[in-house]
Amino acid sequence: MSLKLIEQHRSFDGEQCKYSHFSEVLQCDMTFSIYLPSNKEKKKIPLIWWLSGLTCTDDNFSQKSGFQRLAEKYQVAVMIPDTSPRGEHVANDEAWDLGQGAGFYLNATQEPWAKHYKMYSYIVEELTDIASTLVPNFSGEESIMGHSMGGHGALVIGMKNARRFKAISAFSPISSPSRVPWGIKAFTSYLGEDQASWKEWDASELIKKAGMPPILITQGTQDEFYPIQLDETNFLKNAQENNQEVHYKKVEGYDHSYFFIATFLEDHFAFHMKHLR
Amino acid sequence: MSLKLIEQHRSFDGEQCKYSHFSEVLQCDMTFSIYLPSNKEKKKIPLIWWLSGLTCTDDNFSQKSGFQRLAEKYQVAVMIPDTSPRGEHVANDEAWDLGQGAGFYLNATQEPWAKHYKMYSYIVEELTDIASTLVPNFSGEESIMGHSMGGHGALVIGMKNARRFKAISAFSPISSPSRVPWGIKAFTSYLGEDQASWKEWDASELIKKAGMPPILITQGTQDEFYPIQLDETNFLKNAQENNQEVHYKKVEGYDHSYFFIATFLEDHFAFHMKHLR
Repeated sequence: MSLKLIEQHRSFDGEQCKYSHFSEVLQCDMTFSIYLPSNKEKKKIPLIWWLSGLTCTDDNFSQKSGFQRLAEKYQVAVMIPDTSPRGEHVANDEAWDLGQGAGFYLNATQEPWAKHYKMYSYIVEELTDIASTLVPNFSGEESIMGHSMGGHGALVIGMKNARRFKAISAFSPISSPSRVPWGIKAFTSYLGEDQASWKEWDASELIKKAGMPPILITQGTQDEFYPIQLDETNFLKNAQENNQEVHYKKVEGYDHSYFFIATFLEDHFAFHMKHLR
Repeated sequence: MSLKLIEQHRSFDGEQCKYSHFSEVLQCDMTFSIYLPSNKEKKKIPLIWWLSGLTCTDDNFSQKSGFQRLAEKYQVAVMIPDTSPRGEHVANDEAWDLGQGAGFYLNATQEPWAKHYKMYSYIVEELTDIASTLVPNFSGEESIMGHSMGGHGALVIGMKNARRFKAISAFSPISSPSRVPWGIKAFTSYLGEDQASWKEWDASELIKKAGMPPILITQGTQDEFYPIQLDETNFLKNAQENNQEVHYKKVEGYDHSYFFIATFLEDHFAFHMKHLR
């Protein structure tokens, strides 16, 4: 494993780092970012995963959310993957909602995507191993959060690994991807026409299984993609019918931007830390 | 005055707005950003000016500093100008430290710059009038802060208008521009070879006049431009000899980035609010 530190900035007493590496799972060069709190008291440090939305890289959350203040306050490490495999030899599409920047956190089975588009395995296996070597005094406790396509990713990865992740949260997630244009397009391309294969990547299906981690969702009423892409009704109905702990909060006047995320991030960190301790 | 609202995002209960307009002073189209706190208690609202550094626009501080949390907490409006005149018909230079993105907050006297490069007058007159119309319940109280070239700008504009601005602060400012490469290059181009004309735009000269506003400066020890461009010794010597209130803080391990600014911004807001009330 050849991990290269390409950026390091002191931030709120901790360190904001960016690494590049060759991913065996994705078969391409990747970057990711990680924040390590100062840990002045030499305690065990839990880890929160952040998954970004369409068109993002690991930089968006690092640079625009202000999360470092909270990660240092709560003494938690934060791991931020990129949103897809990358590179000239990696399949792509002219649209911004398919291909590079739009990996949807699944393992593709269809051509031309199947060779590289394995973001699920990349995160759950390869990056997980890397994270465990980078977080000093790692407590082994993890939770996961994300935004939009990354909210879908957090819900799916968190629920497919329900014993591993202590909490899940999402800002304006695609919670029923099989029913909305972004999800239908991506799933048809990456997984094929057979909708039976979509169910394991659809949060509104996964929530039907008992014993999922507690979930917090925040949605702005002025979100330009709400409700078309982000309709919550099917997900919430299935959550309620299966007695899952889902806190769904609508916030007046907020849109889909990082200004919205930054505003409510403290609520999400507090929710995660309650379950990580 | 044709002011056009081109972006508006709810942020920490307030509104983050971006406007475009034709500037009479600069003779070109400009953008600026302004944050208006929620003012739920219907009080009088003071105004802090933020001036950005080389290569920045008004977006850098809006998107990367997390200042909105503090502006809402303290119920203060924040005005963020661009860093130079803009446009294809506006003089420019291939270097990133001269021309567009590098206005140095002065009024140029030399060709080809003199027609458009009047950032001092643009801010102190034209944008000031605009700000007073945009801030509801404006208290009339103002202070000014900035970063790097914008730290120079905050010091110079704040001291040239010492009765108007209640406090000045700067992150890693160019505090002796007449003595460092960035400043010498810009002043020679914009003001000419006669160094007598440089003095009114050099904070280390302006600080010699009695009765300047209180000043806070924060400087990272790992700043890649320190001390070459950001040497503080001459400024601090002149401040001390003239009994000015200058608080200069060096912070271990921090660099020149917005990660540094975000970390110490709360200290700066607290300093400003102490003097704005």
